[in-house]
Amino acid sequence: MKQFLLLAALAASTCAFAQEVKEDFVPNELNQPGQEYPMVNSQGYARFKIKAPEAKAVNVGLGLGGTHGGTDLKKTADGFWEGTTSAPLDEGFHYYHVTIDGGTFNDPGACNYYGSVRWESGIEIPAHDKDFYALKDVPHGNVQQILFNSPSTKSIRRAFVYTPASYDGKTKLPVLYLQHGWGEDETAWSNQGHANLIMDNLIAEGKIKPFIIVMTYGMTNDLKFGAGFGGFNFKAFETVLVDELVPYVDKHFATIADRQHRAMAGLSMGGMETRNITLARPEVFGWWGLLSGGQYGPNDFEKMDKNLIPFGIFMSCGSKEQPDAINKAAADLKAAKYNAQGYVSEGTAHEFLTWRRSLYQLAQMFFK
Amino acid sequence: MKQFLLLAALAASTCAFAQEVKEDFVPNELNQPGQEYPMVNSQGYARFKIKAPEAKAVNVGLGLGGTHGGTDLKKTADGFWEGTTSAPLDEGFHYYHVTIDGGTFNDPGACNYYGSVRWESGIEIPAHDKDFYALKDVPHGNVQQILFNSPSTKSIRRAFVYTPASYDGKTKLPVLYLQHGWGEDETAWSNQGHANLIMDNLIAEGKIKPFIIVMTYGMTNDLKFGAGFGGFNFKAFETVLVDELVPYVDKHFATIADRQHRAMAGLSMGGMETRNITLARPEVFGWWGLLSGGQYGPNDFEKMDKNLIPFGIFMSCGSKEQPDAINKAAADLKAAKYNAQGYVSEGTAHEFLTWRRSLYQLAQMFFK
Repeated sequence: MKQFLLLAALAASTCAFAQEVKEDFVPNELNQPGQEYPMVNSQGYARFKIKAPEAKAVNVGLGLGGTHGGTDLKKTADGFWEGTTSAPLDEGFHYYHVTIDGGTFNDPGACNYYGSVRWESGIEIPAHDKDFYALKDVPHGNVQQILFNSPSTKSIRRAFVYTPASYDGKTKLPVLYLQHGWGEDETAWSNQGHANLIMDNLIAEGKIKPFIIVMTYGMTNDLKFGAGFGGFNFKAFETVLVDELVPYVDKHFATIADRQHRAMAGLSMGGMETRNITLARPEVFGWWGLLSGGQYGPNDFEKMDKNLIPFGIFMSCGSKEQPDAINKAAADLKAAKYNAQGYVSEGTAHEFLTWRRSLYQLAQMFFK
Repeated sequence: MKQFLLLAALAASTCAFAQEVKEDFVPNELNQPGQEYPMVNSQGYARFKIKAPEAKAVNVGLGLGGTHGGTDLKKTADGFWEGTTSAPLDEGFHYYHVTIDGGTFNDPGACNYYGSVRWESGIEIPAHDKDFYALKDVPHGNVQQILFNSPSTKSIRRAFVYTPASYDGKTKLPVLYLQHGWGEDETAWSNQGHANLIMDNLIAEGKIKPFIIVMTYGMTNDLKFGAGFGGFNFKAFETVLVDELVPYVDKHFATIADRQHRAMAGLSMGGMETRNITLARPEVFGWWGLLSGGQYGPNDFEKMDKNLIPFGIFMSCGSKEQPDAINKAAADLKAAKYNAQGYVSEGTAHEFLTWRRSLYQLAQMFFK
């Protein structure tokens, strides 16, 4: 029923803003090498073309939970199925998949990104402010895959570590632990989020001092797939993160290993994890960030040891989420004299452009 | 016609070795999280099950160019299509894809690996000797994504750098430049090849001294997709590799920057590149390796400056390729007093288990 309402709302907005579709489509920047489709145009429409000559029905579902509606493709004479979205998509990155004769598959033209507990197709509507995460001719940091031992989960686990271009293994740097959302994994912040490029550009422009970012898998072991948040145990992840990964990173990288120089932030479910773990272990993290992942309020800090109050609190979401809640929470914290910042990403929903922009803002607040 | 002959040969061998299929199938190790299918059994049969209730025909194509034949899936009562290969697959990694109603898609249950100029599905038949590339509780090196400037191609390009666990940025190490095959990219040696785990295990067992491995994209700019080798220009890649990437790596990593401590090797097309580039630039690389990628002969060295003869030459292939050519080339080189080694991977074809085993051997020969 919720799905129906969303689609109805989308249809209404399409009527209200009906416009001529410009025929300036170009191959999407996230396409597999040499692939022409999917395409996007200058207005943000997406066009799909997929070969399946004997299929009965082909449909493209866009956005988390179909939030950008479905696009039925029509069969063309050459055995392809083709179709254009009924409305422009929001700027930024969107997950999607293709339903072919009742089965769920990916668009063979697009690259894949892990979201919704599966490798989904991805499409990017170029944003007007895309420059801040563009790949430029500036000094580039590295993204390192590390493998660390996790006795609590009896596994060897993977994380990615962004080290800035100036990293030399000697000069000690602050560290941000940055979490993905539900159904995503430790690849999301680099692949979908361009966290490394955002950092490279901020550092090159002198807007921030270099710091390290660590990204690991937050849906620790006891998540029942398909069970949603219900089956998720924050404590298991807290143990992996705080008692296993943080010591590994502090041992193997040049870090300033204290709470004043250690931050945690996360998007969506990663924000819920951040809220939970920072309040449980304030002695570990001194800077706290929730990206489309809830709020902190003055109540959270009233009974806290004054020495463990965070140095800074960052909260954000897209303007199409609950911006009022973010703005109110930030105002309440500021009124109570906490160092808090609220940020609302204009024109975006619960998607990665919101979080790219949030990281851009957060990075300029933390560790100062 | 070639395709037909291969399939006919496979059918014949299936008849000859007909055996009862054991019902001990388990989810494949390369499946996406939480996915039950595809499955493999202890004999090496693969079983696929894919949802597509309205489809007319679903077929699985296995191996490069369908070398492992096709498996027609049959529709089951619950809207899935299911089928088991008609013969066991070779041990090791295989690319595959699914043809649904005439279109090419991936199996939604499997993870994807870049090969054949597309992200393909992957399946792994556990090898009897898989221990040498297993993820174990030993010190692990990192795999770092680097971004380097390439004036010759007017682009910023990506490479992956394996640094061993002992890497501290001070102790200088030798470097192996290791190339993927046609249609693959710089992710192949880590994802399909487990190069990092092979190195971690060799180092932990004291079988080799630590060295660095650099992997970058070898199908440089002027390849026409679908054109095969014909459109490929080795010179363009030589410039990127030798004049742009090698200096970047020597500047940003602790390397011993001379030919005695710099090697090049590659698989398949990467072997062709290695052969071409090492002979053109012997002053840069002192150790040369061809993995299912041709041979060197004494003729190659006769007119060469004696000071630029390679310190060691490694050549390999699978026993189902042209082992005689490898054995003869190695014997000829040894007879002419060159330090050469031939290696034949038993029971494997032009696939990644051949190359994992080859790297395991090569790593124990180079830099000694």
